[in-house]
Amino acid sequence: MKAEILSIGSELTSGQNLDTNAQWLSVRLAEIGIPVGWHTTIADNVDDNVAAFRIAAGRAGLVLATGGLGPTQDDLTREVLATVGGVDLIFHEPSFVHIRDLFAKRNRPMPERNRVQAYFPAGAEPIPNANGTAPGIWMMAGATPIVAMPGVPSELFAMFEAEVKPRLVHLGLAGGVQVQRKLNTFGLGESHLEEKVMDLTRRGHVPEVGITASDATISLRIIARAATLVEAEAQIAPVEATIRQRLGNFVYGAGSEELQDEVLRLLAVKRQTLATAESVTAGLVAHRLATIPGASNWLRGGIVAYTNDIKTALLGVPKELIDQHTAVSPQVAEAMALGARQRFGSDLAVSTTGCAGPTTGAANKPVGLVYVGLAWDGGVASWTFSWIGTRTEVQSRTAKLALNRVRLHLLES
Amino acid sequence: MKAEILSIGSELTSGQNLDTNAQWLSVRLAEIGIPVGWHTTIADNVDDNVAAFRIAAGRAGLVLATGGLGPTQDDLTREVLATVGGVDLIFHEPSFVHIRDLFAKRNRPMPERNRVQAYFPAGAEPIPNANGTAPGIWMMAGATPIVAMPGVPSELFAMFEAEVKPRLVHLGLAGGVQVQRKLNTFGLGESHLEEKVMDLTRRGHVPEVGITASDATISLRIIARAATLVEAEAQIAPVEATIRQRLGNFVYGAGSEELQDEVLRLLAVKRQTLATAESVTAGLVAHRLATIPGASNWLRGGIVAYTNDIKTALLGVPKELIDQHTAVSPQVAEAMALGARQRFGSDLAVSTTGCAGPTTGAANKPVGLVYVGLAWDGGVASWTFSWIGTRTEVQSRTAKLALNRVRLHLLES
Repeated sequence: MKAEILSIGSELTSGQNLDTNAQWLSVRLAEIGIPVGWHTTIADNVDDNVAAFRIAAGRAGLVLATGGLGPTQDDLTREVLATVGGVDLIFHEPSFVHIRDLFAKRNRPMPERNRVQAYFPAGAEPIPNANGTAPGIWMMAGATPIVAMPGVPSELFAMFEAEVKPRLVHLGLAGGVQVQRKLNTFGLGESHLEEKVMDLTRRGHVPEVGITASDATISLRIIARAATLVEAEAQIAPVEATIRQRLGNFVYGAGSEELQDEVLRLLAVKRQTLATAESVTAGLVAHRLATIPGASNWLRGGIVAYTNDIKTALLGVPKELIDQHTAVSPQVAEAMALGARQRFGSDLAVSTTGCAGPTTGAANKPVGLVYVGLAWDGGVASWTFSWIGTRTEVQSRTAKLALNRVRLHLLES
Repeated sequence: MKAEILSIGSELTSGQNLDTNAQWLSVRLAEIGIPVGWHTTIADNVDDNVAAFRIAAGRAGLVLATGGLGPTQDDLTREVLATVGGVDLIFHEPSFVHIRDLFAKRNRPMPERNRVQAYFPAGAEPIPNANGTAPGIWMMAGATPIVAMPGVPSELFAMFEAEVKPRLVHLGLAGGVQVQRKLNTFGLGESHLEEKVMDLTRRGHVPEVGITASDATISLRIIARAATLVEAEAQIAPVEATIRQRLGNFVYGAGSEELQDEVLRLLAVKRQTLATAESVTAGLVAHRLATIPGASNWLRGGIVAYTNDIKTALLGVPKELIDQHTAVSPQVAEAMALGARQRFGSDLAVSTTGCAGPTTGAANKPVGLVYVGLAWDGGVASWTFSWIGTRTEVQSRTAKLALNRVRLHLLES
């Protein structure tokens, strides 16, 4: 049995938007042992949609579709599925109540158009949408399940994980298992990392080990395929242990864990509070920490000191220090961290300063040169790095550098 | 006439790699007035490939395929096209010489396997590959051209531009030009916005107008197809003017412009400096502004006041105000903005406070409830909104709300 993924939307066939949903679904299906034979993308056109659903239901054992469930005139999937099933669209009261309540919660009138989202092909089953108004649709075309989900990634991801995947497993459509373990590292370059695990990444190694880099985070993926979860996990465990042993503290987390997750976990374990003093990253370090629920227990706050006079006025960085060393210097990074620690009354304070580009004011402070400072009870230190990248890359990677320094300090203290 | 793009490779259907070639080709075809009706992705399997090419040749007026032309056993496109055409594969001497010479230039022996790349379906025409060994294939399936190109992006891009595009134009398949204009709006919900432009978004309207939403930014796309650029622009201009007139200041920019671009542009025009006081967004407003080169001329900095005592200590928000109204209140939002304006000595200060979730401390302060404050010379105001979304969505959209308030103030002042 192979699955087909249908992506619906003229913004995809025209090339305006890149379809990432089909890839995401393919990976999720692989994880539960369902191979994908086809991705098909169709414009917002009734006839082409009907034909594509018929072709898919004819050749695939499972059809997953995304898009076309919104409230606007382009959103044709409800109508298309009714035609494919040869049935009428029927009003579904509980879905309507869900949509109406969502608007009521926002204290907004429900536009009349959104009513169409409560219509379903007769005999089809609505799939709850935790993150939006459009319910999904589960219907059968002969023996082939057709599952229509929203195209908005956050709605699709939540609906697939909470509603669709469990049903596929329950129906026995899931085959053997593929288990993937992703280990995330920071601080070691890709080539140096590869040298340390060269024997594991060669072609044909079981389990498969691959290396990918994304915005200065280097990840190792261990992929095991087996009949059962236990067998797959047994393949992974010794390889994971070897990698962790060889890479030590360069590994900061697994799966979708980010540096900020680990920093907040360690702050909670060590019961330490943190403040930030950001120049080049301008709030990004604080923001990344604040994406984690419960961050407010340990992150006291921060100061974005973008100009020199603000570094002096709000962080107490001596004006002479800036005049002597410039703002892009280890001395100023350390003074910023000390100032933030004092003003926020926190256990730790981390700072960033640097030149994000695209131009620089000083020849000896090239674009990409950054400093990170860290102050703690009884100490202060700074680190430097020279990034090659765009303005936003320099900002993003410097935020990672700062979070990583907090992490290493907490691990070692 | 609509085109179909076929992407061949199990690494695509499995989700291991993201298909970006189909998007690239769609954009290139749109530029020469050939609309794309379908993208189809197929695994490396002969039967599925033959069936997919037959479906494509049956419904599309032009089929462009990528992938499957390499020298390895997975590379099936030559064999598949011979089957589709009902012909044999025939050896093509000049292509063989090209492949052999490429290896000779690199001082490497030609592996015997690469010889297969010089075989073509009888009657098909080889397409030169300037950047690699695999020639492309141009063949006819009835009246429909099938064009097979390499999957390696650098080879595909060069072959399409140098060889395929000119032939499509020469054959009269290119149908003039397609011009797209994207207008970005913030502050009006998707359904309400659609009500205002319902007459323009109806199916069949010329030029085509579509609506897409992304993280609370709603964009309108005007797409004109015409024989010449001048005619296409002439279709777009009055529709763009109508939309701008009806939506007024809800339109903040065009193309890839973000709210922060417009805010920084207006700060520069009005020569106003800005500071931020962020609780729920925790630095995101400042960070987004700082992604723009030159932001440091107008953004003085900000304070991330994540805890109540920091709101009092660093922003001067009276403790009694927080006790009486809680931190998630219009009163505190306004006091934060006033405090930031005073401390940073800026012309304007914008603040955010709210509950990003996933849980809330107070029943009357539900997850998603946020306040934005703005202080200026002689005034202060606040606005509220209730988002439905994840923690990061609430944070991201609240940052947009804050940027939008600064924008509207600058427009109206």
